[in-house]
Amino acid sequence: MESNILLINCPDESGLVFKVTGILYKKYNLNIIRNGEFVERNFNHFFMRTEFSGTFDKEELLKDLYEVLPEGVEIKLTGKRKKDIVLLATKEHHCLSDLLIRHAFNELNANILCVISNYDVLEDLTRKFDVPFHFISHEGMSREVHEAAVLNTVQQYNPEVIVLAKYMRILSGDFVSHFTNRIINIHHSFLPAFIGANPYAQAYERGVKIIGATAHFVNIELDQGPIIAQSVIPVDHTHSSREMAQAGRDVEKNVLAKSLKLVLNEQVFVYRNKTVLFE
Amino acid sequence: MESNILLINCPDESGLVFKVTGILYKKYNLNIIRNGEFVERNFNHFFMRTEFSGTFDKEELLKDLYEVLPEGVEIKLTGKRKKDIVLLATKEHHCLSDLLIRHAFNELNANILCVISNYDVLEDLTRKFDVPFHFISHEGMSREVHEAAVLNTVQQYNPEVIVLAKYMRILSGDFVSHFTNRIINIHHSFLPAFIGANPYAQAYERGVKIIGATAHFVNIELDQGPIIAQSVIPVDHTHSSREMAQAGRDVEKNVLAKSLKLVLNEQVFVYRNKTVLFE
Amino acid sequence: MESNILLINCPDESGLVFKVTGILYKKYNLNIIRNGEFVERNFNHFFMRTEFSGTFDKEELLKDLYEVLPEGVEIKLTGKRKKDIVLLATKEHHCLSDLLIRHAFNELNANILCVISNYDVLEDLTRKFDVPFHFISHEGMSREVHEAAVLNTVQQYNPEVIVLAKYMRILSGDFVSHFTNRIINIHHSFLPAFIGANPYAQAYERGVKIIGATAHFVNIELDQGPIIAQSVIPVDHTHSSREMAQAGRDVEKNVLAKSLKLVLNEQVFVYRNKTVLFE
Amino acid sequence: MESNILLINCPDESGLVFKVTGILYKKYNLNIIRNGEFVERNFNHFFMRTEFSGTFDKEELLKDLYEVLPEGVEIKLTGKRKKDIVLLATKEHHCLSDLLIRHAFNELNANILCVISNYDVLEDLTRKFDVPFHFISHEGMSREVHEAAVLNTVQQYNPEVIVLAKYMRILSGDFVSHFTNRIINIHHSFLPAFIGANPYAQAYERGVKIIGATAHFVNIELDQGPIIAQSVIPVDHTHSSREMAQAGRDVEKNVLAKSLKLVLNEQVFVYRNKTVLFE
Repeated sequence: MESNILLINCPDESGLVFKVTGILYKKYNLNIIRNGEFVERNFNHFFMRTEFSGTFDKEELLKDLYEVLPEGVEIKLTGKRKKDIVLLATKEHHCLSDLLIRHAFNELNANILCVISNYDVLEDLTRKFDVPFHFISHEGMSREVHEAAVLNTVQQYNPEVIVLAKYMRILSGDFVSHFTNRIINIHHSFLPAFIGANPYAQAYERGVKIIGATAHFVNIELDQGPIIAQSVIPVDHTHSSREMAQAGRDVEKNVLAKSLKLVLNEQVFVYRNKTVLFE
Repeated sequence: MESNILLINCPDESGLVFKVTGILYKKYNLNIIRNGEFVERNFNHFFMRTEFSGTFDKEELLKDLYEVLPEGVEIKLTGKRKKDIVLLATKEHHCLSDLLIRHAFNELNANILCVISNYDVLEDLTRKFDVPFHFISHEGMSREVHEAAVLNTVQQYNPEVIVLAKYMRILSGDFVSHFTNRIINIHHSFLPAFIGANPYAQAYERGVKIIGATAHFVNIELDQGPIIAQSVIPVDHTHSSREMAQAGRDVEKNVLAKSLKLVLNEQVFVYRNKTVLFE
Repeated sequence: MESNILLINCPDESGLVFKVTGILYKKYNLNIIRNGEFVERNFNHFFMRTEFSGTFDKEELLKDLYEVLPEGVEIKLTGKRKKDIVLLATKEHHCLSDLLIRHAFNELNANILCVISNYDVLEDLTRKFDVPFHFISHEGMSREVHEAAVLNTVQQYNPEVIVLAKYMRILSGDFVSHFTNRIINIHHSFLPAFIGANPYAQAYERGVKIIGATAHFVNIELDQGPIIAQSVIPVDHTHSSREMAQAGRDVEKNVLAKSLKLVLNEQVFVYRNKTVLFE
Repeated sequence: MESNILLINCPDESGLVFKVTGILYKKYNLNIIRNGEFVERNFNHFFMRTEFSGTFDKEELLKDLYEVLPEGVEIKLTGKRKKDIVLLATKEHHCLSDLLIRHAFNELNANILCVISNYDVLEDLTRKFDVPFHFISHEGMSREVHEAAVLNTVQQYNPEVIVLAKYMRILSGDFVSHFTNRIINIHHSFLPAFIGANPYAQAYERGVKIIGATAHFVNIELDQGPIIAQSVIPVDHTHSSREMAQAGRDVEKNVLAKSLKLVLNEQVFVYRNKTVLFE
């Protein structure tokens, strides 16, 4: 039997768990597989994620939930199924390779619909895995025109999630606004340190002893979106800036894969520019 | 208002969360502060930990819970308060120092009633912090007689938890059986590697690149009790066996402090010789 | 100008660094790029690794070194160049994929001559990257006959290093003896914990809070060879044995890649069943 | 026999190791215990650290070294002995406790001459360990007058190293200039993220998934001095700002202890606002 995921967030009040489990268990006799709750204490906001199986009418269940839950509640009810995703890349292969391999071996809970890049460097790699590749060069184009072309291609695929797998171009607020909390970026630094360009050069210059990578949703403000996952590795004075970048690549791909998995499995809430994770 | 902790574990069945939250919310109008559930899937066993505040009659609440919950349920209902603990040590100070300092600055959710040791090396340290110290030498005594003396002293204090803060003597099954899942030991190795004596010498001999420490409840079988927490640090060929031991000390004290905190805060279930943690 | 790597190990005595640098600098006027020494203190054994560039006659340089260094010295002098390697695999793809991708993008300091497997599962993947694939099924064959067939194929390629990229068959002492300290295995456990089969099932059963992977040279004694690299990740009670295995895969491929890099760059000495690393 | 430490840094050129080991071995017949070199490739700068034992005239040895080494060389020759240090603290005890305990058990290669604080909160703790405590309140004083009083007290002890063990006042350039690369600070953040006040509040606000601590030498520019050591721990959405701070304390004390050990053992070079470590 297919399992379902129910995501609820609303202002906290007494009895929310009782009310929701009451509907699922008493009224619909659904089988709860996994259940988690969290209350954010600064703003008293309630989050609940429930996986369940059983037969039900979606519209009716939602109606029942809205009835007992407080005003302003957000409810998402979705089947546990593969999501459609599109990958954007530039020249570096490590994040793209990693996702293509996982996809090829059915380890990614997603269908990669296509790869879009402003260079053709990764076309061969992508085609090896029978994934469509769109080369949309930015050369000789204004930023706006190029982005419009990319947006147009993306929209033909109608993806649920967009992954910036080392896509090295800045997206406009307009682009981002089409996919709120649905674009995942991997930033090659331990945000909020080294915001902006060349973080490894900055890290080298500063003489840090640890470098890291950050996967986050993309917001209008560059590098400021909700952080999903971070990871680090030790470095030392023997690492050149280039060696730091090399060492950082494995961390980048692991963090991106981890955060994408969380998003695909509906384990991520976004609230006030932060994430609440049900791991 | 004091808060309370409710721990429930029982065979899983439908509606458990609904039933428990129903009693807490509907019947007693208690305020749930934090709630967590886990279902172990191999044996379909249900675990629930709830923190709540409000007024209630303990006997009545327990009666109501037993009524709706399946046979074989274990329920623990306790106030969120400092627990009484006793520390056993031998000669090494690092774990004892760490706990005495945290205790002195009110960072340990416990009253350290006394320290018992088979050497007097740590007496000065202990007395600095105004904690009673019992020196019970094992010299010239049989293992049984010495242990009986230690047990006798422990029992005078009636502790809820006993911490083996680098107590280097093996406890008998009889001793252990007085305090089931209430004795915490820090093992100076990444169990189950290097079981037994001199784990750092073993680790050095084997040429490992990582060493660790394990905090666990003490069972009748040496080093085989339920693991509460583990941590590791990297080492390399430049570390002698003694340097590995030195490096391991910081890990040991951190892991012991972490696991003790989990136990004192009632975040640990023991089930089939493993722990289920609500962190 | 090509750079060279000089590896020396011998019983320690005074003046070794002076003598070696004297030959390189005074007699041959070579340019030392990077230099490291280590003295193992238990057995007073000296290790030195030097990268240098410049013109010299190899036979003569070696002769000069042997002349001033103590009896029993082992000297290896090699160009800094790509090594020829052969990969053995079974059914799991993650380590193989990782190495093939790095190879394809010229990030591995090696030529992958071929992949040999006792299943054909990974043939498609391997051929995507234009690497020869030899399917040598073990079905209906004795262990000896199968291994002889594998050995025969390996020897046709004359590799300098053999990588067991999740090759799930045990190699005989005879096979191993052809390639002393030249076969690298990735063991899916944090050795020496969980030696043998199904380490993730063992780890799950024991309720550990950390799992890991170990890359080591293959010895006649199974899982007992010199450890090159280890790494770990945290797990908890929510991980099933299968989920531990999944989580372990990323660690495995990273540790294998790291240790292979060390071996390919001649950064690893083996001494008394342990490794001395110049990182 | 006492061992000695020789630290050399100078512009790189051919033959430096040969020349230095020549003097130590050939001329003085000294016994090299441990030796390390590093060449910084951006500016071609050479670093060498040698531990050796044997009899020699210090002035003469230095003269011989200056003779063969390039202009601009910096040479430090020191016995391997306990250094005199002074600790500055404010109200938080965790770093101070940790150092006092290590000192009490002879694990710190230093004599703690005194503790100076702008509060009297930690006086009891300090006196338990028989270390002089100077309470120099800043209340009703200008920053300049208070700092002058602190400086005056520090100078009476003539320490070789000053440790800011959570000293929460900013030191002026004038103060710092008396102790170049001799003041170690622990910054409660993973620099360069969250520079300035309340880093845990900043980290909480940003929703990071990892927090850390940084030990660094103090420079005229706040939080910008050479980094000696860094470490991190994972956090998540369940951590309040206060819980992040609690979690951070163990990291802070460990990183401070580690970096102090490196400094006390003369394992740290400072070059162009970065550190080169011989670990």
